[in-house]
Amino acid sequence: MTYCVAMNLRDGMVFASDSRTNAGVDHVSTFRKMHVFRRDNERFIVVLSAGNLATSQSVISLLRQRECEPERCNMLNVPSLFQAAELLGDTLREVVSRNSGQAQGSKVDFGASFIMGGQVKGESPRLFLVYPEGNFIESTEDTPYFQIGESKYGKPIIDRVLRYDTSPPQAMQCTLISFDSTLRSNLSVGLPIDLLTLRPGKFAPSRQLQVCENDSYFRTLSQRWGEGLREVFASLPLPEDETLV
Amino acid sequence: MTYCVAMNLRDGMVFASDSRTNAGVDHVSTFRKMHVFRRDNERFIVVLSAGNLATSQSVISLLRQRECEPERCNMLNVPSLFQAAELLGDTLREVVSRNSGQAQGSKVDFGASFIMGGQVKGESPRLFLVYPEGNFIESTEDTPYFQIGESKYGKPIIDRVLRYDTSPPQAMQCTLISFDSTLRSNLSVGLPIDLLTLRPGKFAPSRQLQVCENDSYFRTLSQRWGEGLREVFASLPLPEDETLV
Repeated sequence: MTYCVAMNLRDGMVFASDSRTNAGVDHVSTFRKMHVFRRDNERFIVVLSAGNLATSQSVISLLRQRECEPERCNMLNVPSLFQAAELLGDTLREVVSRNSGQAQGSKVDFGASFIMGGQVKGESPRLFLVYPEGNFIESTEDTPYFQIGESKYGKPIIDRVLRYDTSPPQAMQCTLISFDSTLRSNLSVGLPIDLLTLRPGKFAPSRQLQVCENDSYFRTLSQRWGEGLREVFASLPLPEDETLV
Repeated sequence: MTYCVAMNLRDGMVFASDSRTNAGVDHVSTFRKMHVFRRDNERFIVVLSAGNLATSQSVISLLRQRECEPERCNMLNVPSLFQAAELLGDTLREVVSRNSGQAQGSKVDFGASFIMGGQVKGESPRLFLVYPEGNFIESTEDTPYFQIGESKYGKPIIDRVLRYDTSPPQAMQCTLISFDSTLRSNLSVGLPIDLLTLRPGKFAPSRQLQVCENDSYFRTLSQRWGEGLREVFASLPLPEDETLV
């Protein structure tokens, strides 16, 4: 399984992905799910992937291979992020149809989904969610974030604290707490977490890091969050017969 | 969808279920999912259901109908809760095999799952989770609770605060917060919530209530929990360049 989140906020973007891949619980490996396509001072595009690893790796490999073919549309020459999302969707359809065509009668799910975001010079930062069918949606100020993979455990905290005007450091904090809840509940989501933040108009990450098990900030955050939750819980009024019919 | 939780703790049991049923988002109805089988001073058994409504209703109806047939095993004469769980599992298999047999080629999922718990005189309180296949597991002191239906949004809070020695009023509080998170994130889980607590050796509920939208305790709990979470979040240390590589 996988857990990836990305946010497109007023003052910046946050991208995060775990790095566990599994085929059953007895076949667990570490694969990065964050991929960057960049051209200095002109574009910075981040792609997060979830789903069938063979599919998502093929999609990324094809996109990388075609970077060097300037005669066709590629991630480094498309003039907008919308077109980059179209390109990703088309490449995904191409890989899925090739794999499904060869696997006659197999019940394997070849699907993969992606979050793609960043900035191409001349545009504002944009964020897209690409479905396994290759179509996609874009984030808005009302819904400034997307998740893929095992999204449910970590969604309530994001829904409660994230707004379009949340600052990027706070959004990063919120993202790490969301990961903490997910890591606790689903064994198939695992450390390290790849984290990247991007400021508008800067075509390079303002921060890029990998959060490992012994990262002291993540451990502090996780511990204080857990303690804080238990304190809030302990401070809540107990049900009394009067208050409940 | 559905969300049901039940806990078997040192000092009592807690059962809770929502009451929304849907077939698509445009066909939403209210159905209670908590069913009680009782015999004064001798047994009190609570069944919570999730999954295909036709299946779960048929199972409950058959169990009720057979209550009046003393010559066969039924919910009111089986000597243990384990046998009650076997009976529920058998009845579930009977209904599913009848329905699937008639619906040739249909892709409808006829599955349903159940939580069954309570006490039969001569035994301690026991709690079982009955799978769609009719087999079942029992709770333990290490894992004193079960969930069925849309369980993910409301699981992190239970995992963080619930222990075998948590008091029943606190467990009820924890259950309501777990429901609050689920209600916020999944439209197909809806109020009212049926809640019931049971003390060991009492074959009648120590508390039984329905939490509706205007329940002042639930609203206070939900509001203070949300505020508390945001306060804890605001008190967490922000990431600094020093703390993160």
